[in-house]
Amino acid sequence: MITRGRFITFEGGEGGGKSTQARRLAAHLCARGLPVLVTREPGGAPGAEAIRQVLLGGQGLDPVAEAMLLFAGRREHAVQTIRPALEAGMWVICDRFADSTLAYQVHGLGMARATFDTLAGLALEGLRPDLTLILDVPEAIGMKRAMARGVAADRYERLDAAFHGRVRDGFLALARAEPDRCAVVDATVAVDEVTAAVAAVVAERLSA
Amino acid sequence: MITRGRFITFEGGEGGGKSTQARRLAAHLCARGLPVLVTREPGGAPGAEAIRQVLLGGQGLDPVAEAMLLFAGRREHAVQTIRPALEAGMWVICDRFADSTLAYQVHGLGMARATFDTLAGLALEGLRPDLTLILDVPEAIGMKRAMARGVAADRYERLDAAFHGRVRDGFLALARAEPDRCAVVDATVAVDEVTAAVAAVVAERLSA
Repeated sequence: MITRGRFITFEGGEGGGKSTQARRLAAHLCARGLPVLVTREPGGAPGAEAIRQVLLGGQGLDPVAEAMLLFAGRREHAVQTIRPALEAGMWVICDRFADSTLAYQVHGLGMARATFDTLAGLALEGLRPDLTLILDVPEAIGMKRAMARGVAADRYERLDAAFHGRVRDGFLALARAEPDRCAVVDATVAVDEVTAAVAAVVAERLSA
Repeated sequence: MITRGRFITFEGGEGGGKSTQARRLAAHLCARGLPVLVTREPGGAPGAEAIRQVLLGGQGLDPVAEAMLLFAGRREHAVQTIRPALEAGMWVICDRFADSTLAYQVHGLGMARATFDTLAGLALEGLRPDLTLILDVPEAIGMKRAMARGVAADRYERLDAAFHGRVRDGFLALARAEPDRCAVVDATVAVDEVTAAVAAVVAERLSA
């Protein structure tokens, strides 16, 4: 019998180093002989990647339409990629998941929390991360780092500091509301220190 | 003060002549001096057209993801196109709308009716056609006509007769459930006769 794998998500605002830390955690777990799948949202499955292109297309979608699109892609990601990998015993590490929609659309843009809960219920049917690592940086530092990457600013990066402050507060409120699932990691320190802190949390919470 | 326009949808399975009849009804109403907008789903707004490309991309989406995608596009269509036109006093004629998702996804593919109702509530917030014309043909005739058009079969057209029978039954059940909104028009007769029948229903129901 195959033991179900574990589902770990990285969350937080811009410039916290989520992609880097997701890759580093994967390497760390691989080195310990664990089967690992690294994925990211929006995307992570063929249909979801097609939806990602619409989301990044900058059509200026209505907030509810955008949330429906995000959850349509998340449903594909869950059904095609995440659930099968977990059932095959893999450790799935995902760069952003449903909590990003809670923080950006609900806390940041003011969409109704009930709309989020309804869509999450329909799309995920109870799929929930075993551990969510919230890489926390004050929004001013995060935005400066994101801009320093030199890539074209996406539509969230163009929004103001007040928006990014609400997003950060949303993630921190989530961590307080679900302390068993979430861990806040200080991401203002050096990248290697963040990596060590992440590994320590994973070892403590998931015995890995 | 501008009087709100009217919202008329054409529904039904394949091969009933919805697009043709929508254009003809538009011409008929234009000739009477009414301001008319003809649109169609999936699509009908820039974001919704981008979503249409994903839907037609043949990714083989999960049914719930597909329904979310359909309603994300429908939300854009409603917010960007349909509601503003109605508020400006236009008569909006739409080739397929939410009832197609009820017939194809719920009756045809077996998605839960509650999922449809939830998504429709979130996306449409009460937007409802004033009149829905269901162009009815037995599925065998409809499929033969659809194939005779000579275009590549879409994924629904490739499904079997039993599926198309369920879709037809779904539309007919809807007409029985909502007789004030829906009218079934026999679409097995000559195209001109269908056009005349449609005009008669519109005149009777909407005094146009």
